[in-house]
Order: sequence, then C-alpha cells, then structure tokens
Amino acid sequence: MEYGPIPLRKLIEQFERMPGIGRKTAQRLAFYVLALPCGAAREFADAITGACESIHKCALCCNLTESEFCSVCDDEARDKTKICVVEDAQDLLAIERTREYKGTYHVLHGVISPLDSIGPEQLTIKELLGRINDDTAEIIIATNSDVEGETTAMYIAKLLKPLGVSVSRPAYGLPVGSDLQYADEITLSRAIEGRRLI
Amino acid sequence: MEYGPIPLRKLIEQFERMPGIGRKTAQRLAFYVLALPCGAAREFADAITGACESIHKCALCCNLTESEFCSVCDDEARDKTKICVVEDAQDLLAIERTREYKGTYHVLHGVISPLDSIGPEQLTIKELLGRINDDTAEIIIATNSDVEGETTAMYIAKLLKPLGVSVSRPAYGLPVGSDLQYADEITLSRAIEGRRLI
Repeated sequence: MEYGPIPLRKLIEQFERMPGIGRKTAQRLAFYVLALPCGAAREFADAITGACESIHKCALCCNLTESEFCSVCDDEARDKTKICVVEDAQDLLAIERTREYKGTYHVLHGVISPLDSIGPEQLTIKELLGRINDDTAEIIIATNSDVEGETTAMYIAKLLKPLGVSVSRPAYGLPVGSDLQYADEITLSRAIEGRRLI
Repeated sequence: MEYGPIPLRKLIEQFERMPGIGRKTAQRLAFYVLALPCGAAREFADAITGACESIHKCALCCNLTESEFCSVCDDEARDKTKICVVEDAQDLLAIERTREYKGTYHVLHGVISPLDSIGPEQLTIKELLGRINDDTAEIIIATNSDVEGETTAMYIAKLLKPLGVSVSRPAYGLPVGSDLQYADEITLSRAIEGRRLI
C-alpha cells in the first residue's frame, strides 16, 4: 500500500497487523473508519484505549475484569468448590455461553509450549495452586486437546494429585448433530473409547 | 455477547459494526487489542482519530488527502488533460496500483441510487463540471458496471456532451488469464461485441 495519504496508510497498517485480516480487508476497514463521523471514530478510539487501560486480571482466577474480582468470582451463587481451568478468557466466555457450568474458573493465559519458549512459570499455575483449599472438590482441566493443551493438562494434573482433589477433563467424542462417517479417526476412536451405558 | 467486562463488550460491539465482521471475528479482534501493550493500543487509537481528523477531500478532485490538494493533483508529471471519474477513493487506489494511468482523477463519493435516496446533487458532479476547461481532452467514466454505476455514467456523459470533451468508459470483456467457458453470458457478449482487430 504505497498510495494515499499517510494517516490512511498508517490506519491500514494497524488493521493489517490483526489476526486473520489481509491487505484488502484492512483497506476496507480503514475506509469504513474514514467514512465514520468524527464523533463515532473518536468513540471507537476511546473503546480501544478504554478497554486496554481498565481491563486487568482478576485477583483470584486471572480472568479479565475491570474490578478487583471478575463477575464469576464475585457471584455468590457460583459453586466455589469447582474450578474449571481454561487457556484464555475466550474459552471462558465459550463455556459461559452454554449456561450449564455453575462453578468458577481459572484462566491460565496460555499453554506450555517449549517451541514458543512458554514454560509453566509464564502461566498462572502458581496462582491456581494457591487457590486450592479444603473446600475445593474438583478441578476440570479444559485446555484444548492439541499437543500443548494436553501437555499442560498432564502437567497440572500431576501437581494437583498430591493435594487430594479430583481432577477431570471434558469428554471428547462426536460433536452433537454430526455424521459418524465424517468424523476424523482420533475423534471417533475417542468416542468409542469413552462410550457410556444407556 | 452478554458476558465479560463492559469495556470489552463495548470494544466487541465497535468491531461488530464494521463491514464483513461477524460476532466471532469481532471477539477475536477485541481480544487481540486487549493483548496489545498499552502503548501499541494507544497508537492504534491515535491512528483512528488521526486519520479521521486530518483526512478530507482534495479541493480539486475530491480524492482523500491531508493537504489542500491530493498527491495526484499536486503531481506536475500528471497529464491534466485526462480526468478519470471513479466512484470512491478505493477505486482510485486500484487504478493507481496498475501504474498505467498517468492522467488525473475525479472522485464522485458515491453513485446515483434512488433506492438509497442518493441523487446527482449528493455526488461531486458539480465540482467535476466546474473543473472542465479548454485543456480538458478526455473524461474516462470508470464507475462500476452495475445498474447504479451505468446510470451514473450515462447521466454524467449526457452532461458532458455539450461541453465538447470526448467521454469514454473502460473496456468490458474477459478478465486476463480467465477461461472462456467459465465467463458469464453478459461478460462474454460484451467481449465479443467489443472485439478488436489484431
């Protein structure tokens, strides 16, 4: 993008850095912003700085929040005996959307990944261990089922074992509504392995 | 999106309003912004306000610029006898990228579209007519070839006729490198209609 006024080029560059946004989409978004009335554009800019300045980690579960504790930790109705460990706040939101889980969370903010030089000390594992007390009954480790997620789950499970809490992983199997013949081999074998009596 | 801290929800809403951005992409982009260091986020916000505040229409061709005249109008090497009329600044950038056209432009900032209540007076047609003088040799009307674009082209051509300048439209035909059998009927008939001796 070597054409157009410099502020426009800068804006396109900013959009281009975002994940999944290519040059053409970045250009489209930049022109959308330019077409906004100045008030709306300032509102957009304020939303960006506002979010960055006011949002930080919850003092208990490391979820994103603007107060000391996040809305889940602050909720009296939540079952504090269960802790669901997730990779990031987006995974937490996905589980919240199911409206099924009534326990609390712990956000790791990453997974163990030696290739990206992320070790256990960069995650919030220490904070998780510090939270566990006599009331804690179950830890559900809901990291992704890729290599890094599984490694992290195994690592945490090993640390939790001596503490005497029960540790679980979500069920892996066929997605609801899917066709058995189109399932990949690993998912299908996990589904058969984890079969349940009816 | 009913979960998460309010500044995050506001940010997701802002991204959701953008063209071609759905809820999931908006969420992904918002989390990307949150993960930025505060300095980088402020830079992004400044790029938005900066672009909106400093960019306005060129006094001559209505292209976007931060000075009085845009870089094309300011360029002494440009052939001022040719004016290429385009719908918006994005179309201008597309033509600039070809590095073939050496004339100047005129940006309409829209097309005549009665359904969206956009009439000729909302476009920069008056400014175009005001620019034409004895030096003007040719006007290339490069609006899109959809109904609105064709209507606008016809409308402008009719206004230009009494002024004695030659008026042209870009060639329509088969895209270079395309397969004849996959061309749509209208494109193919236009390509045959506009055939040239070799």
